[in-house]
Amino acid sequence: MSKSFHPPVRTLMGPGPSDVNPRVTAAMGAPTIGHLDPAFVGLMDDIKSLLQYAFQTSNKLTIPVSAPGSAGMETCFYNLLERGEKAIVCQNGVFGGRMKENVERCGAEPVMVQDDWGKPVDLNKVEDALKANPDAKLLAFVHAETSTGARSDAKELTALAHKYDCLSLVDSVTGLAGVELDVDGWGIDAIYSGTQKCLSCPPGISPVSFGDRAVEVISSRKTKVQSWFLDMNLVMGYWGEGSRAYHHTAPVNSMYGLHEALVILEEEGLENSWARHARNHEAFAAGIEAMGLSFVVAKEYRLPQLNSVTIPEGIEEAKVRAALLKDYNLEIGAGLGALAGKVWRIGLMGESSCKTNVLVCLGALDAILTDMGASINSGKAVAAAQAYYAK
Amino acid sequence: MSKSFHPPVRTLMGPGPSDVNPRVTAAMGAPTIGHLDPAFVGLMDDIKSLLQYAFQTSNKLTIPVSAPGSAGMETCFYNLLERGEKAIVCQNGVFGGRMKENVERCGAEPVMVQDDWGKPVDLNKVEDALKANPDAKLLAFVHAETSTGARSDAKELTALAHKYDCLSLVDSVTGLAGVELDVDGWGIDAIYSGTQKCLSCPPGISPVSFGDRAVEVISSRKTKVQSWFLDMNLVMGYWGEGSRAYHHTAPVNSMYGLHEALVILEEEGLENSWARHARNHEAFAAGIEAMGLSFVVAKEYRLPQLNSVTIPEGIEEAKVRAALLKDYNLEIGAGLGALAGKVWRIGLMGESSCKTNVLVCLGALDAILTDMGASINSGKAVAAAQAYYAK
Repeated sequence: MSKSFHPPVRTLMGPGPSDVNPRVTAAMGAPTIGHLDPAFVGLMDDIKSLLQYAFQTSNKLTIPVSAPGSAGMETCFYNLLERGEKAIVCQNGVFGGRMKENVERCGAEPVMVQDDWGKPVDLNKVEDALKANPDAKLLAFVHAETSTGARSDAKELTALAHKYDCLSLVDSVTGLAGVELDVDGWGIDAIYSGTQKCLSCPPGISPVSFGDRAVEVISSRKTKVQSWFLDMNLVMGYWGEGSRAYHHTAPVNSMYGLHEALVILEEEGLENSWARHARNHEAFAAGIEAMGLSFVVAKEYRLPQLNSVTIPEGIEEAKVRAALLKDYNLEIGAGLGALAGKVWRIGLMGESSCKTNVLVCLGALDAILTDMGASINSGKAVAAAQAYYAK
Repeated sequence: MSKSFHPPVRTLMGPGPSDVNPRVTAAMGAPTIGHLDPAFVGLMDDIKSLLQYAFQTSNKLTIPVSAPGSAGMETCFYNLLERGEKAIVCQNGVFGGRMKENVERCGAEPVMVQDDWGKPVDLNKVEDALKANPDAKLLAFVHAETSTGARSDAKELTALAHKYDCLSLVDSVTGLAGVELDVDGWGIDAIYSGTQKCLSCPPGISPVSFGDRAVEVISSRKTKVQSWFLDMNLVMGYWGEGSRAYHHTAPVNSMYGLHEALVILEEEGLENSWARHARNHEAFAAGIEAMGLSFVVAKEYRLPQLNSVTIPEGIEEAKVRAALLKDYNLEIGAGLGALAGKVWRIGLMGESSCKTNVLVCLGALDAILTDMGASINSGKAVAAAQAYYAK
């Protein structure tokens, strides 16, 4: 006979999920109500407003897709592209590659703009691609690359897309609430995010937002969207204004959690959240550098919430992660794709972006690496971070 | 400033979600861990085993899709069909129509077998369609039609599919754990379900299972699956045996809930769960008939967990539902599609299939309809159900 599951209590400093505020898990544990209950319809409206705040947009089509970030990505591509069309896709990490897969699975043609992993997307290369492909329908790029920790200039990339009459399609799964993001100010046409990064919610939901131009494209498609579940023409009837048409059954309790996480974000204030992420990153970076380790991403393009840190020579990275988990209940992430085995990805996202986590992680890394005989400056990291906080 | 949301406490007797055991919501409120945490990988294995039990299968590819039932449906169709292929789709309610949409969005051709809403799928018509379409790849049908409450003969339909060398693709969103279902015994090739019906879990996850023939079809496709997120060739690497490849981020806390719901099912025993659903339906039906109301579906094809009850003449059905919600915190469902405005759909699913709910619902309906001056036999329903239980 099977037994109930009782998860260990971890500190989550990987690339997501991040630590979840107990208010959010408590909200998820509230009694389930029907997905067409008037009380739930009211909650849907509140979630839409709060997501508009988080994205800084007045886009009416701003909703949480009832599935993880990968489905949010598909929602954007599958609604905006039709067979035979062309999209310019920027790749500087894993998620640009997944975008390429999405374009191909639409029966559309991806034109790739490649940059080194850890570098931001190069504006000049993008402009060349836009010039060379006047028939491209959209420009897709990752604002915050979770696989490297690099931030690209979503404002300038969107401006370039518009200059060449393309829509901009933006991945900000890891960006939302962690760094500046201004959907209306920058004119982003379509964007998707995730709940398990800087919103500090359990994974499972993907907030998306579509501007007027994108909605116009979606509602005037020649062919049906290749996913019934993600077809925004149908989902709009469920999440839209006026009477709600049944589409699918929303994940009710997950929506409770997302709502509470967004309430917490509103209480803190978006700018304060960005500032907190920046500050804890600075303290963490002071510690990492005092230890003699370095970052993959140059300072000016670095995401404060996702730190790719190089592994000291001769150290088996998986052993370090196993020791952190075993001795400290602390999770950090492995490198992905081209960076597998070369870096750790250490998240300071949402609730995880706090002084306690910074100090515990630095102290634990310091102790474990010293123990393994790594060539680091032992015993300096925590003091360096403390010194930063004391400034 | 927004406020935290505190849902009303409802009794859920609509077509899903059903009442959720507090053990399940408590499990969902446990601290989040990483989706690649060894403890979570162990949980994934346990969920797979428990789902195999619920489906009565030894299929290795038995997993919970990280999205609601509609995505489970897409997982089956999009993995099994390629452009230009043909599928026979049986429709006797809303969800056969959604299957048709799925086939079309694959770029495949649906051959429809239509039956009246409330009737089971007609085996003779299906055999005619199979004979007339020797190039059909699969036969798709709904085991338990949530829009009507009719049960079709999944065993015989699967046997027919195999006789004509087709795969069988089965919707048992409302069937699983509520009525007999024997995936291996009946030889079903692909099946999807939902969590928010007889498993009594919050909505958001879709258990699926694929047999060896279906897996062979999926792994030898000529073209890529049109959804990256739902591509079983990729998902198998995440949920499969051996080392887990990162695919998407699983909805960790929702999986806690599903696991606990499956543990509860195992504790009760599948056959006991089927018997409980049958017994509470009988008591409920005794009450409904004593009131002078009738069922859409003939007794022998009736799903005990989903009761389509006709509305007395001259009664505005929405007013009755509103009164049930306001005065009793009790949710029942409206009719869907062809049955909209003609029936109520009253769920006795999972935790909602209990004596208390049966008696409360009958008593409340009796009082409200009497109050509205409906021509029913007032004051008989509860006693009739009590008499059934006393037998």
